[in-house]
Amino acid sequence: MRKGVMRPGHVQLRVLNIQDALAHYRDLLGLIEVETDALGRVYLKGWTEVDKFSVVLRESDTPGMDFMAFKVLNEATLDRLHQDLLGYGVAVEDIPAGELNGCGRRLRFVAPTGHQFELFAEKEQPGRYGVGNHNPEAWPRDLTGMKAQRFDHCLLYGDDLDGTFALFKDVLGFDLCEQVLTPDGERVAQFLTVSMKSHDVAFIKHAEKNKFHHASFFLETWEDVLRAGDLISMTDTAIDIGPTRHGITHGQTIYFFDPSGNRNEVFCGGDSFYPDHAPITWDADKLGKAIFYHDRQLNERFLTALT
Amino acid sequence: MRKGVMRPGHVQLRVLNIQDALAHYRDLLGLIEVETDALGRVYLKGWTEVDKFSVVLRESDTPGMDFMAFKVLNEATLDRLHQDLLGYGVAVEDIPAGELNGCGRRLRFVAPTGHQFELFAEKEQPGRYGVGNHNPEAWPRDLTGMKAQRFDHCLLYGDDLDGTFALFKDVLGFDLCEQVLTPDGERVAQFLTVSMKSHDVAFIKHAEKNKFHHASFFLETWEDVLRAGDLISMTDTAIDIGPTRHGITHGQTIYFFDPSGNRNEVFCGGDSFYPDHAPITWDADKLGKAIFYHDRQLNERFLTALT
Amino acid sequence: MRKGVMRPGHVQLRVLNIQDALAHYRDLLGLIEVETDALGRVYLKGWTEVDKFSVVLRESDTPGMDFMAFKVLNEATLDRLHQDLLGYGVAVEDIPAGELNGCGRRLRFVAPTGHQFELFAEKEQPGRYGVGNHNPEAWPRDLTGMKAQRFDHCLLYGDDLDGTFALFKDVLGFDLCEQVLTPDGERVAQFLTVSMKSHDVAFIKHAEKNKFHHASFFLETWEDVLRAGDLISMTDTAIDIGPTRHGITHGQTIYFFDPSGNRNEVFCGGDSFYPDHAPITWDADKLGKAIFYHDRQLNERFLTALT
Amino acid sequence: MRKGVMRPGHVQLRVLNIQDALAHYRDLLGLIEVETDALGRVYLKGWTEVDKFSVVLRESDTPGMDFMAFKVLNEATLDRLHQDLLGYGVAVEDIPAGELNGCGRRLRFVAPTGHQFELFAEKEQPGRYGVGNHNPEAWPRDLTGMKAQRFDHCLLYGDDLDGTFALFKDVLGFDLCEQVLTPDGERVAQFLTVSMKSHDVAFIKHAEKNKFHHASFFLETWEDVLRAGDLISMTDTAIDIGPTRHGITHGQTIYFFDPSGNRNEVFCGGDSFYPDHAPITWDADKLGKAIFYHDRQLNERFLTALT
Repeated sequence: MRKGVMRPGHVQLRVLNIQDALAHYRDLLGLIEVETDALGRVYLKGWTEVDKFSVVLRESDTPGMDFMAFKVLNEATLDRLHQDLLGYGVAVEDIPAGELNGCGRRLRFVAPTGHQFELFAEKEQPGRYGVGNHNPEAWPRDLTGMKAQRFDHCLLYGDDLDGTFALFKDVLGFDLCEQVLTPDGERVAQFLTVSMKSHDVAFIKHAEKNKFHHASFFLETWEDVLRAGDLISMTDTAIDIGPTRHGITHGQTIYFFDPSGNRNEVFCGGDSFYPDHAPITWDADKLGKAIFYHDRQLNERFLTALT
Repeated sequence: MRKGVMRPGHVQLRVLNIQDALAHYRDLLGLIEVETDALGRVYLKGWTEVDKFSVVLRESDTPGMDFMAFKVLNEATLDRLHQDLLGYGVAVEDIPAGELNGCGRRLRFVAPTGHQFELFAEKEQPGRYGVGNHNPEAWPRDLTGMKAQRFDHCLLYGDDLDGTFALFKDVLGFDLCEQVLTPDGERVAQFLTVSMKSHDVAFIKHAEKNKFHHASFFLETWEDVLRAGDLISMTDTAIDIGPTRHGITHGQTIYFFDPSGNRNEVFCGGDSFYPDHAPITWDADKLGKAIFYHDRQLNERFLTALT
Repeated sequence: MRKGVMRPGHVQLRVLNIQDALAHYRDLLGLIEVETDALGRVYLKGWTEVDKFSVVLRESDTPGMDFMAFKVLNEATLDRLHQDLLGYGVAVEDIPAGELNGCGRRLRFVAPTGHQFELFAEKEQPGRYGVGNHNPEAWPRDLTGMKAQRFDHCLLYGDDLDGTFALFKDVLGFDLCEQVLTPDGERVAQFLTVSMKSHDVAFIKHAEKNKFHHASFFLETWEDVLRAGDLISMTDTAIDIGPTRHGITHGQTIYFFDPSGNRNEVFCGGDSFYPDHAPITWDADKLGKAIFYHDRQLNERFLTALT
Repeated sequence: MRKGVMRPGHVQLRVLNIQDALAHYRDLLGLIEVETDALGRVYLKGWTEVDKFSVVLRESDTPGMDFMAFKVLNEATLDRLHQDLLGYGVAVEDIPAGELNGCGRRLRFVAPTGHQFELFAEKEQPGRYGVGNHNPEAWPRDLTGMKAQRFDHCLLYGDDLDGTFALFKDVLGFDLCEQVLTPDGERVAQFLTVSMKSHDVAFIKHAEKNKFHHASFFLETWEDVLRAGDLISMTDTAIDIGPTRHGITHGQTIYFFDPSGNRNEVFCGGDSFYPDHAPITWDADKLGKAIFYHDRQLNERFLTALT
């Protein structure tokens, strides 16, 4: 949090059918449905998240990610980052408060990999779902499905990894937690963090700009990952891979697809990071092990199924 | 235990190199090395097993299973089962006490699927490794690797499933816990138990007789299965599939190979069985889900990599 | 299962208020409510149990256990055990089929410790709740509370431990899995099994006859024990002790009370037993560690809060 | 990390016998022994910590904590905080680089509760024990005991909670994550964080200054907490309480004592915090549940056993 950026605040995903998507994200992942806005977008959140929402589903003809947003400390920080972005030569679009229900003004910009990102400082903060801030119980009894705790990060595919890294590092205060390097030193994967988490956003090198690999949600335990896999099977949901462990971050994970073909991850664990940590480097010829620690080889889908 | 057969007592496996195999079964699986006999065979056991040994490794030019043995209640039971086998028309070979160090006389016979099985009533019983029978601690502190608790069962491939089932049911008192049936009612997989476990031995239909699919070892928890997967990766051991859950038995599992190409499983969990339970039936078109509950499809290796 | 006795089949508990008890056993423990009979008794079962019910709640002015029943292999076994009991000098009461809904005839007798036990061979068998016997999913999605899997055993307090052990061993075919012995060799606790479980019923020495310590229900994992503790707190249920591990059986456990003051246990794990295993012996001066492995001392309630 | 303070860097504990303490912290907790300095102090670290050490044991006639230190971003931050402390009216003692082996210069000051704290910016950084920064495996195979991952926080008892909170908040940039308030609004417990962790240091109101309640070490899972409890019992280590869950932070925990009477905690889990989160408030009449979520009452030791 070198520059006042705190955490991933929300992601807006395009889905082909809003009811199917809601069944997936609410009933299977167990996200809390918050409300539907005037544009028909549905808002959800993980039960441990204090802000009003973290996932926005928008019906569209094509799946994928509209944008991912980061919450910053306060309005003063937002103003400063606005200037810093402009000073860095990045065009910034002002989105007025209320364009997303309950969310303050947002600054939107396009990163060199072609993805749209936003910054914001204010969002209604009803507190953790079902437990609140006063003598809170350990967890609410009415959770369903995978009981996803929070929207955690996105993995995005794009071309200009160096450009996006420089922007996130120099302007937004992110650190490089882990990377994959080719023998000639090209960084083909970068896991960036602005917190103790091993990634708040990650990028993999890809010929096209602005591709979406997955949105990831945090579970509490490896047993929750098992039960997530069980639920994927019980609901005939398309699985990608898992349960398994990542080499990068060492988190424990399972990948699957929403009804529109957007990939999701639910995971637990993961190494801790502090800003004085040297980045962890994986050799590109160890990419299989870096991604899927047990199988030690990528499945084809990991590199090609994008939205 | 309708007929006095209690449990799998041991399995003798052929390995190409005894030292490599020992490193695998002792250092990776964490079996306790007991001793080496005059023939160079190495004896091991899981730490919770009270008998002297449950795994015997024999160096050979070809991998595979020599035989699997069941322990029966006592010598009188062994005598009765001897007569019952003969009465059933099964040839029985007498193996004298001491042929395996510390093991009493064994009755050896060939099942219709071509596999060699043995029955025995006596084996030295030093008790659980490291904890014993007097004020026993929860577990010994010097376990290594996967900390496998016991040799649990084998899965065998062969042709005459009906014949072997009839023999195991009528003479040895096994029950059919789970089965896979084709649309025309052919049983292509049978999981047999003589205890509360969902399988003590299992068979899958295969054109050839006497093929070995895997020997399975019991772990305590799903977290142990994760760490088993980690160790498989750390030691560059050939993995087959997992961690995952089985549909059949609902156990949680990972498959991998010993240095000779014999498949191993370590697993935890699994449904409980009693003799009044109706068998659980899986449709053959659900075979993928029955075997690998999360992926819902077999990998090719599952059907073809046999020793 | 030396004599054809398979498992604990049901326990009938006296409760002060049937609705409060139902809220406890159904909503907190997560047992499946089956039905209420003409006498107002409520029937429940754990979701993995194949028989119709395993817990019967009867409203009464005093809490405690009416009787505990064991299921035997078949009617022929029941007849034989009837004769064996009479031959052993035990008075046997015939309870006709249907006295408990869906249950066949029962043989009731009083053990030397003063507790009423029953044997029966037939009970309606609808199969596992929510999953059945055909391509069964891993678990039903509509479970609540602690998701108790099965009624597992009772711990009973009484005076004549030797007499009850002899009866259970000689007539019913139980084995002594674990015991606590005083320096002069008196057995003050005995854990008896008729299966692979480390106890199907247990007794602790006590001056009075026919006292009830707890009824125990099986959970799948240590994480389930944690969540059971959480639910105990969330529902302001009276806790006794836990989460912790037992020394005896090494199971992982938590004790609490139903609204009538009957103690319950939910637990997971536990060592495996076979009939050729020597009993495990705990010294009476290690009783604290034998019962509560971590604290290594009994709380006063363990010895005195009985119903 | 509003002011550049990153994390707890080390704690120096006084122990009555250095060899006994080493056996405890190295062999039981599983900390990595790093080295012994010229003064006879022993340095240790959790295996996931990248810096050279995080625990220093000093032999003394009285147990307790000498000081707890926080690592800051860099030397410039250290200089600024030096000025800020002085400007706040806090006396600062300069400890030269090398006074602790491998550690840069430290700024030492006494908080209003009487405890000594330090800030430093530089420490040798050999990386995670046994895995390093290049294609790191999931964990090292040679860990022992509880496999403690990191020194996590201290809980300290003292009188002037308001004064210490103001200092930590205004000068060091800590946030108030959780608090316990009396009916008249007095804060009797405060859990302070400078990260995503629910506490980096905590204070409980006490008549005396400068008392030490416990040093806490992070474990990965609730299963690790169980095994920690097992090891406590196996080694006849004095237990305080647990395994259980805290209400405050919702972490899962066990408390015990080192051979000198210093209390330790090992725990896993715990809620996440960000600087925009409102503090969580517990009512003082819920203190029992706030501390021990399952038992819902304090044991006497929690309030009185201090060093």
